[in-house]
Amino acid sequence: MGDGISMKAGIVGGAGYTGGELLRLLVHHPNVDIVFVHSNSQAGKPVYAVHKDLLGDTELSFTDTLQADVDVLFLCVGHGEAKKFVEASDLPQHIKVIDLSQDFRWNESITEATVSGAGRTFVYGLPELQRNAIKEAENIANPGCFATAIQLALLPLAAEKLLTEAVHVSGITGSTGAGQSLSATSHYSWRSSNISNYKVLNHQHLHELRRTLQGLQQEKLPEINFVPYRGPFTRGILCTSYLRSSLSQSEATALYEAYYKEHPFVSISSTTPDLKQVVNTNKCLLYIEKQGDNLVITSMIDNLLKGASGQAVQNMNLLFGLNERAGLNLKASAF
Amino acid sequence: MGDGISMKAGIVGGAGYTGGELLRLLVHHPNVDIVFVHSNSQAGKPVYAVHKDLLGDTELSFTDTLQADVDVLFLCVGHGEAKKFVEASDLPQHIKVIDLSQDFRWNESITEATVSGAGRTFVYGLPELQRNAIKEAENIANPGCFATAIQLALLPLAAEKLLTEAVHVSGITGSTGAGQSLSATSHYSWRSSNISNYKVLNHQHLHELRRTLQGLQQEKLPEINFVPYRGPFTRGILCTSYLRSSLSQSEATALYEAYYKEHPFVSISSTTPDLKQVVNTNKCLLYIEKQGDNLVITSMIDNLLKGASGQAVQNMNLLFGLNERAGLNLKASAF
Amino acid sequence: MGDGISMKAGIVGGAGYTGGELLRLLVHHPNVDIVFVHSNSQAGKPVYAVHKDLLGDTELSFTDTLQADVDVLFLCVGHGEAKKFVEASDLPQHIKVIDLSQDFRWNESITEATVSGAGRTFVYGLPELQRNAIKEAENIANPGCFATAIQLALLPLAAEKLLTEAVHVSGITGSTGAGQSLSATSHYSWRSSNISNYKVLNHQHLHELRRTLQGLQQEKLPEINFVPYRGPFTRGILCTSYLRSSLSQSEATALYEAYYKEHPFVSISSTTPDLKQVVNTNKCLLYIEKQGDNLVITSMIDNLLKGASGQAVQNMNLLFGLNERAGLNLKASAF
Amino acid sequence: MGDGISMKAGIVGGAGYTGGELLRLLVHHPNVDIVFVHSNSQAGKPVYAVHKDLLGDTELSFTDTLQADVDVLFLCVGHGEAKKFVEASDLPQHIKVIDLSQDFRWNESITEATVSGAGRTFVYGLPELQRNAIKEAENIANPGCFATAIQLALLPLAAEKLLTEAVHVSGITGSTGAGQSLSATSHYSWRSSNISNYKVLNHQHLHELRRTLQGLQQEKLPEINFVPYRGPFTRGILCTSYLRSSLSQSEATALYEAYYKEHPFVSISSTTPDLKQVVNTNKCLLYIEKQGDNLVITSMIDNLLKGASGQAVQNMNLLFGLNERAGLNLKASAF
Repeated sequence: MGDGISMKAGIVGGAGYTGGELLRLLVHHPNVDIVFVHSNSQAGKPVYAVHKDLLGDTELSFTDTLQADVDVLFLCVGHGEAKKFVEASDLPQHIKVIDLSQDFRWNESITEATVSGAGRTFVYGLPELQRNAIKEAENIANPGCFATAIQLALLPLAAEKLLTEAVHVSGITGSTGAGQSLSATSHYSWRSSNISNYKVLNHQHLHELRRTLQGLQQEKLPEINFVPYRGPFTRGILCTSYLRSSLSQSEATALYEAYYKEHPFVSISSTTPDLKQVVNTNKCLLYIEKQGDNLVITSMIDNLLKGASGQAVQNMNLLFGLNERAGLNLKASAF
Repeated sequence: MGDGISMKAGIVGGAGYTGGELLRLLVHHPNVDIVFVHSNSQAGKPVYAVHKDLLGDTELSFTDTLQADVDVLFLCVGHGEAKKFVEASDLPQHIKVIDLSQDFRWNESITEATVSGAGRTFVYGLPELQRNAIKEAENIANPGCFATAIQLALLPLAAEKLLTEAVHVSGITGSTGAGQSLSATSHYSWRSSNISNYKVLNHQHLHELRRTLQGLQQEKLPEINFVPYRGPFTRGILCTSYLRSSLSQSEATALYEAYYKEHPFVSISSTTPDLKQVVNTNKCLLYIEKQGDNLVITSMIDNLLKGASGQAVQNMNLLFGLNERAGLNLKASAF
Repeated sequence: MGDGISMKAGIVGGAGYTGGELLRLLVHHPNVDIVFVHSNSQAGKPVYAVHKDLLGDTELSFTDTLQADVDVLFLCVGHGEAKKFVEASDLPQHIKVIDLSQDFRWNESITEATVSGAGRTFVYGLPELQRNAIKEAENIANPGCFATAIQLALLPLAAEKLLTEAVHVSGITGSTGAGQSLSATSHYSWRSSNISNYKVLNHQHLHELRRTLQGLQQEKLPEINFVPYRGPFTRGILCTSYLRSSLSQSEATALYEAYYKEHPFVSISSTTPDLKQVVNTNKCLLYIEKQGDNLVITSMIDNLLKGASGQAVQNMNLLFGLNERAGLNLKASAF
Repeated sequence: MGDGISMKAGIVGGAGYTGGELLRLLVHHPNVDIVFVHSNSQAGKPVYAVHKDLLGDTELSFTDTLQADVDVLFLCVGHGEAKKFVEASDLPQHIKVIDLSQDFRWNESITEATVSGAGRTFVYGLPELQRNAIKEAENIANPGCFATAIQLALLPLAAEKLLTEAVHVSGITGSTGAGQSLSATSHYSWRSSNISNYKVLNHQHLHELRRTLQGLQQEKLPEINFVPYRGPFTRGILCTSYLRSSLSQSEATALYEAYYKEHPFVSISSTTPDLKQVVNTNKCLLYIEKQGDNLVITSMIDNLLKGASGQAVQNMNLLFGLNERAGLNLKASAF
């Protein structure tokens, strides 16, 4: 599709972190008109009253009224709230829903990356897993942030059924991953220069990533152990995954390069990377090492972009036949 | 007094930031027994359940019962609460109160650095202003953090009646200055790497510092303009003050060195200083420059120590004839 | 000019911070082809070997050879180096030079915002001061970062000849303002959670901003006192300026709104702002208060964008008749 | 030994980070006189010219001359330099050397925690491993920072010969672990808000910790995989270790509590801990969890204290029969 295209988009839950980040993307997206931004708590206020960096970019205001004249509806509400919203609202079926919560990402009884619920069918929106299914989807369940970073580290191996040994993952996330609610662990005086782990070997994103990898690997998955950390920074996730593998470093690198060749947001670095190479972009960066018998994959994303709102826009682009990169040629903050 | 001395101390409001910092000091103070730590919200819990770094240092628990068998009572409650507490409680007069709130620091109708209220008389506890009055005091009103940093920058000039021109001050404070309550401006995602001003030319500490300086200067004080900033760090205050002055740099430096000669916590730096030289200590560091006609004084303290709990201990030491540095030979965090 | 336009651009000094930031902008600019990126130290390497976030965005490499087939040449070399470069090279006069150093910003003997040197004439590139002169310019001297933040705070007053009283400014800058060279004050262990002042009342940007304000004010300028701070963050500058003024807050706000009405990157905030509203954008945000007799103006920019490379692109857009915002609709990092 | 004791101490390499931290401890140590502080690069300058926070604490100056009238000599020079120093100097044998480098920590040919070299015998100075051997030692090889944090997490298991399954460790260190030399990864603009891994599965501290654990476990050690990260903070190390274990959480906790009962600097937390509980102290904090079949041990220390200079003082205290906590009752920075 060409430059003339203009999608009509609505946002529900526009006052939170992912809603704000989505607005930052859509106000400059060349093919999108934002028809409404819904927020019960902020209705009536200009969006820049909440997302103050948007002053000068848009005169939109929050509304508490939904409008049906949209092509796509982004749900940026909390986990559990998205399903309730879809059930309670009477959305016309032609409106495609892109849900950023975990409500439609997985289901214990199924092994496919498609979930039905609340009268709709949701395709798991990881473009590097199933771009074609996304293009044909009715609705999208946008993946979790840690789940995205870890899946992108392991997809090429699973696709070749090489996930045969236990995988050990550690990862550190920025504070925006925990949302904007106030809590002891979001207090600046506590979190500044601090580090802590949480949900060790027990993080909820293991469900969706195991479902994905199981679907590719087909045979029984090995254990995947994941140690998440809260880091003293605001944006980004960096993960290190390792497993015993008979692949050499060059074989592994070739495998990853081939797998991601047609995926514009994933790059393989040939030098040791750091998180800020991807912060404020929709990119995922991977780095492959071999240490003894272990293959080590470092992966990193911006949790609010490739891990949330950026991936949602990427999914929208695919759903509507736009250039996959439209609105996502973002300048890294770099520092 | 020698090593054998042991003061009995109680703390009211021990669950907040200044209460915790006071505990960190008193558990290692060679001349203090902590008799009780009062907290309505945390009664029954060990103090290390709230101030987690104290695990291994003390087995004290919070209590909701006051005990009268103390020599000194520290009030670490909020502004307004201290006065209410003193009025409502029936404290024996022989217990000396050291109040860290602003309730007894100043009074519009008086010009002396002694305030009466709630049946008690409070001496303003800035040792570098009036050490002898503190030694003889019945009770102490512990100064504010910005007020301490700015007064220590200006005391030697006021003492010589040299505050004759407008003074311009800017200062940056760490997040602990705002206490432990959760708020938008204490959220890590907001405050990290951020800077903002607040109460520009209108900060409440101007009252107590003007009262002090007026008392020394005696003639009408010039305007004192103060721009406070919230900085992206947790501890410390750094202020820059300047005014037109006929003093040369060496004259000014000599004046300051003479003034602070007998004060163990104030040093004059001969090289450009930075905040972390004083963080986690009870020190105040000063740096004197002359630029054109302007005398520039940079001053810095740790807001929780010399700006609050450390100064409270310094006042206690003076009140009870202990070594002024007892319990305050603190290792700087330095980094 | 329409979408079909394509400028040919060269960059000299592309391996530094401002060169990297310029590359981040130009690789996504809809009207620019980057013909070459010159660096003596990095010649032969891909630009993403130095600016690692550009991996996946461009396959350009650094070169040590200049090419003449460009419309515009950006100089991102150090202070002093730019003048030498222009003198030593034999640049065709039709190539417009945009210099990011201070070499052509001001000259002691002149009062106009145009400087001749090295055989060329440079217009001072502050679009909100003289957009029309920039459109007609042969070459541009891009303003300094602090100079931009302070001028934008004071231009509307100077334009009305209201700068009649002493102005007092304090401002805090991020670490990227000091460039990428290693030094004691750029060491992470030193700067993290630290604050310090430097060049108090003696900052070099006072030259260019006094020249500008004098040009508007025409009468003798009052003193402008400026206290700069190094802050513990990487991007951004926030300044607070105040002066005695008879304007009310609403009069002042109206004056500023009128002055900046046609300038797309300057906004007047109606609520207390914070630095991160502008970080990673080309915006300047202003906030106007009245406290007693003083008018207080808070101004903030991203030092690498509106304070350097973003403003350079804005100047390029004006020079070549492009949309002033082309390539500068940047997503704020916001957190 | 009582209060009257006074050790005479010398420091070699006093201008670096560990030398500075040692000075911060020794200037307030009740039983130590610092006889000299050696530095080739800073000889003649007051120590506070380099360690600026020491202004007001000591009038000592650096010297380039060694003095023999000391009881203990701390070596704070770089790896490789310590061995050279001991070989080249003609130190009287009665002077006990405490070396903070890795030069005498391990030796490929030996399995005991005692290393001979340069004509001296060094006992590996981890008090929680071999306090009695330390008390009797001639010289001490002070452990590495990561090695300390990981060993303290695993010692109780190894002592019971329960290290029978592969151990997986991830850990994050602050910037001071890399010393004060300037480098790309110590630049503030790079490291702020950034995260990166390094030496994945290949860190040099694995040598000394494997030697220790092997010595206790006696049978063949399983693999110990370690992923180190550089974190955006200055002080501290937090590690998460896990392995399959048949111990229940309460059995494991009881085991750890018994093992560390007589060790004053190690505490077992009953709630999720965070790094800042130990920053600026000589403590190690441990937290024990069971997740499925895995036992998870979180351990944390301040890398400059329990991971370097604090542990060196602890070793000195043991060597000379002082109270193990003398000079180490440090106030946590907490924030």
